[in-house]
Amino acid sequence: MKWSQTLIPTLRESPADAEIPSHKLMLRAGLIRPLSAGLYNFLPLGFRALKKVERIVREEMDRAGALEILMPALHPREIWEKTGRAETLREILFKITDRTGRKLVLGPTHEEIVTSIVAAEVRSYRELPKNIYQIQTKFRDEPRPRFGLIRGKEFLMKDAYSFDADDAGADKSYDTMVNAYRRIFERCGLQTIVVEASSGAMGGRFSHEFMVSSSAGEDRVASCEKCGYAGNLEKASSRLKSDSLAAPTALEKFPTPNVRTIEDLTKAPYTVAAARQIKTLVYALDGKLALLLARGDQELNEAKVVAATAATAVRPAHPEEIKALLGALPGSLGAVGVKTGDGKSAPSAVIADESLRGANGMTTGANTDGFHYRGVDIGRDIAVTQWADLRTVQAGEGCPKCDGVLRVGSTIEVGHVFKLGTQYSVSLNATYLDEKGARKPCIMGCYGIGVSRILAAVVEQHHDDQGILWPRAIAPYQVAILPLNTNHAETMSVATNLYNGLAAAGVDAILDDRADRPGVKFNDADLIGFPLRVTIGEKSLAKGVVEIKARTEAQATTADTAEAVQAILQKVAAL
Amino acid sequence: MKWSQTLIPTLRESPADAEIPSHKLMLRAGLIRPLSAGLYNFLPLGFRALKKVERIVREEMDRAGALEILMPALHPREIWEKTGRAETLREILFKITDRTGRKLVLGPTHEEIVTSIVAAEVRSYRELPKNIYQIQTKFRDEPRPRFGLIRGKEFLMKDAYSFDADDAGADKSYDTMVNAYRRIFERCGLQTIVVEASSGAMGGRFSHEFMVSSSAGEDRVASCEKCGYAGNLEKASSRLKSDSLAAPTALEKFPTPNVRTIEDLTKAPYTVAAARQIKTLVYALDGKLALLLARGDQELNEAKVVAATAATAVRPAHPEEIKALLGALPGSLGAVGVKTGDGKSAPSAVIADESLRGANGMTTGANTDGFHYRGVDIGRDIAVTQWADLRTVQAGEGCPKCDGVLRVGSTIEVGHVFKLGTQYSVSLNATYLDEKGARKPCIMGCYGIGVSRILAAVVEQHHDDQGILWPRAIAPYQVAILPLNTNHAETMSVATNLYNGLAAAGVDAILDDRADRPGVKFNDADLIGFPLRVTIGEKSLAKGVVEIKARTEAQATTADTAEAVQAILQKVAAL
Repeated sequence: MKWSQTLIPTLRESPADAEIPSHKLMLRAGLIRPLSAGLYNFLPLGFRALKKVERIVREEMDRAGALEILMPALHPREIWEKTGRAETLREILFKITDRTGRKLVLGPTHEEIVTSIVAAEVRSYRELPKNIYQIQTKFRDEPRPRFGLIRGKEFLMKDAYSFDADDAGADKSYDTMVNAYRRIFERCGLQTIVVEASSGAMGGRFSHEFMVSSSAGEDRVASCEKCGYAGNLEKASSRLKSDSLAAPTALEKFPTPNVRTIEDLTKAPYTVAAARQIKTLVYALDGKLALLLARGDQELNEAKVVAATAATAVRPAHPEEIKALLGALPGSLGAVGVKTGDGKSAPSAVIADESLRGANGMTTGANTDGFHYRGVDIGRDIAVTQWADLRTVQAGEGCPKCDGVLRVGSTIEVGHVFKLGTQYSVSLNATYLDEKGARKPCIMGCYGIGVSRILAAVVEQHHDDQGILWPRAIAPYQVAILPLNTNHAETMSVATNLYNGLAAAGVDAILDDRADRPGVKFNDADLIGFPLRVTIGEKSLAKGVVEIKARTEAQATTADTAEAVQAILQKVAAL
Repeated sequence: MKWSQTLIPTLRESPADAEIPSHKLMLRAGLIRPLSAGLYNFLPLGFRALKKVERIVREEMDRAGALEILMPALHPREIWEKTGRAETLREILFKITDRTGRKLVLGPTHEEIVTSIVAAEVRSYRELPKNIYQIQTKFRDEPRPRFGLIRGKEFLMKDAYSFDADDAGADKSYDTMVNAYRRIFERCGLQTIVVEASSGAMGGRFSHEFMVSSSAGEDRVASCEKCGYAGNLEKASSRLKSDSLAAPTALEKFPTPNVRTIEDLTKAPYTVAAARQIKTLVYALDGKLALLLARGDQELNEAKVVAATAATAVRPAHPEEIKALLGALPGSLGAVGVKTGDGKSAPSAVIADESLRGANGMTTGANTDGFHYRGVDIGRDIAVTQWADLRTVQAGEGCPKCDGVLRVGSTIEVGHVFKLGTQYSVSLNATYLDEKGARKPCIMGCYGIGVSRILAAVVEQHHDDQGILWPRAIAPYQVAILPLNTNHAETMSVATNLYNGLAAAGVDAILDDRADRPGVKFNDADLIGFPLRVTIGEKSLAKGVVEIKARTEAQATTADTAEAVQAILQKVAAL
């Protein structure tokens, strides 16, 4: 492609509303342009990179035996009512009423549709397993579209859905997808962390996220460099020993006027370390009040409360509910001597974080405003009804899988795989007849990749002060040919020959035939980040050479003009 | 691909709601499945054929120098208000309000969006011409979605938009697209008629449709086999001589009690042939009443009235308006002696169809209920203010370009090219600076192809009683390999070797490894319409041969097993 014939509107300055490197650079390099909040046009270079990612995704899905189909973006609302997600996903669903009054939604995902297809078309265990996927535009009414391609109202997604006859098959399908995902991200030049995650609105039994580390990430992940363990903070656990004393001490009530918080109690005259306090929180779990206990230096994680209790409605109790339950207000709450009951006049449960197991000599509220207990032995003084992992992991805590130490950082999710089980196949009747003629629901998995988001994640991971550094496999063009003086006949002749030679060898090249200053061409080539740049200048030509430089190299090398195509091909292959 | 591993749910019977061959066959062959009215899932085979059409379209657009981009499907409604089409296309626009109250629409086409991109990014004549395209899903709230992929609420479209500095350039861009379209349809195996058409809601100066003859077509086209002339009935003209007498006759008013229609007057006692009558219609053109005259045997064409008068609001007048204007009711209306005026108390214009030019001895209403005039000489007795082509062409009329005779038939539109001019570039400010630094609007063209509709059109043109006959270039698989006894080891070994040999040679093949009866396999292969079928039976194998049969052939030929791959490759190449 000749530069003059395509459309590459590069910008010297970043638009003011772009906050993160990928968003700034994709705008500046002329890859994308905003149409409106969360809606982007892919210009020719951005589109080329997008198509290259799409091809890699397709090749790996096909290699894994998945079947490509295409489902509509418009769905009748009824089908979303059958699974209950018309309500649970109500906020992100774009809703439409057509001219006949029919209610439609724009698909944010396609479990409902693909499960209906399988329900109608698959009858026997002999037809299983099936893994069905599409690469298609998704629509979500995001509360806060931002960060360019990271979080938009409309984006390109690869979504796959596996249907198996039994659990062992479903696990195999899941592993096949995890491996395909590893290859996809590796081919795109992305370093990913595979993370245990919560299943959220998808439901299902377990899930893993493929994460790219980025300061711009919206997700927080704990990971261990020593053993490779990683978990989304909604799910990650850590190894923490309770800080117990050798000998138990006696329980003692003492006045704590003006103490309202954990921190208040760490100060004089009390000086009780946060790790030696028991934090007592009151939550309504499906309408019943329960006490949740954690160490004073830990934060409660609501996603883990949901996972531990299977409650679907979880909220902090209101002050008046707490006062009625325990007789005191937050600041002096505790579980010492508390008996469980109906969840109104007495808590329905006392659930304690594992880090409190075996703790003694602790301090906690006495359920009398302005009083606390010290010398609390949790085994002796508190009737814990359930031990669970309730806390949010913090950097520096021990890895739960080895003796390493956890770090916590921001990440961008680029893929997510879910073991769904049978929730969709049961609601939509996707059943099969087994060997004995018994009807059973298919065991499902679902597997998503943000195809357009991959582009942004790659730029987040591969850029420097000058611009993007595209991995070769998804670069808009692999080679940029820069004739410095477009009025010089020999320069243009050598440039054109190189361009044709590379095209014949199947290498994507762009010929910068603009009558601009060399500085403009160099800056644009660096900004866009073509992996290889070939410079044709009059001085070099006088010596019979052209200059070749990888975007990642500081210095160019030279190649004889006659052998330049071969030299470029070798260098491209080695990138 | 092995049959057992993909998803091909063929049907013996056509679903009851499928009316036309392509719809029936695409359902029966397991290519598509309805999700809801006007919304279809592409199953694996349908998706493969769709992707092959898409690739042909992309290759030819790229070859023509067009630049591929991708624009969002969701558009802010404001941009549609700038061109007035939020109102003119109101009925087919799907409307959405997002969670912040912002009004969005789903794009039924993308003139507004692409023109905004060019307005923002193109500055100089040096950057023109540009032809920008995308292959993207379109959404239209159709009043009556039907005929499978022919008319849906959501469909895949290739839409291209050219931007030129001057009219000559725009004409060249238009011709380049017409030629690309010819190649695209030819490569897809479609015989198309290129038809002059009305521009409709696109506006613009002229347009051509690429039509496929089909009894299921929704468009009516007049065409001349002798010279190749063709026109959509909204636009087509014909050669008609007025049926005038050698000598004029005297104007005479005569009583016609009970005559209400042209047909009434053809009967006794009057026996005036329809072609010897003048039909007088009253229309409101942008609110002003006008008389429209046609020969009694012709039908008025409202699209032509719009084209002839440039009126934007065209409707038949109400009876009370007519009575007030002419003093009579329909059945006795005429233009003899009528003077033009303000469009309320007197008609603003008297517009006559060209077929009446020079007519004499005609009969028409006398503007007195129950009376007509005979002996009308249109030049002498009627003050025609405009002559125009107002009639709908009828089969058997003369070709306007040669001495041939027109036929009229149903067609499916698969492509449409428009010379738009500057209407969008002016409303959206897509201007450039010319050589002298003057700011001018770009001259635009737009060019659409219904990518998913092509599939249906191909099936309409290529099927027989047994099923589809796919052209090789877009067949889901080019070759079907049918091992008749899948329990016979040698059969399966030969089949697998053939399959691998074809795969290595880059030929798409499907291996029917189902344990079904041969009849089931033959019927499915014919129904789906793979171009070539290779049968491996025990009897043939005993003779050292396999059977090869093109879908279009009645009889199979045999090839030695050892040479079968070569024989198949030759036969595929010759298809």
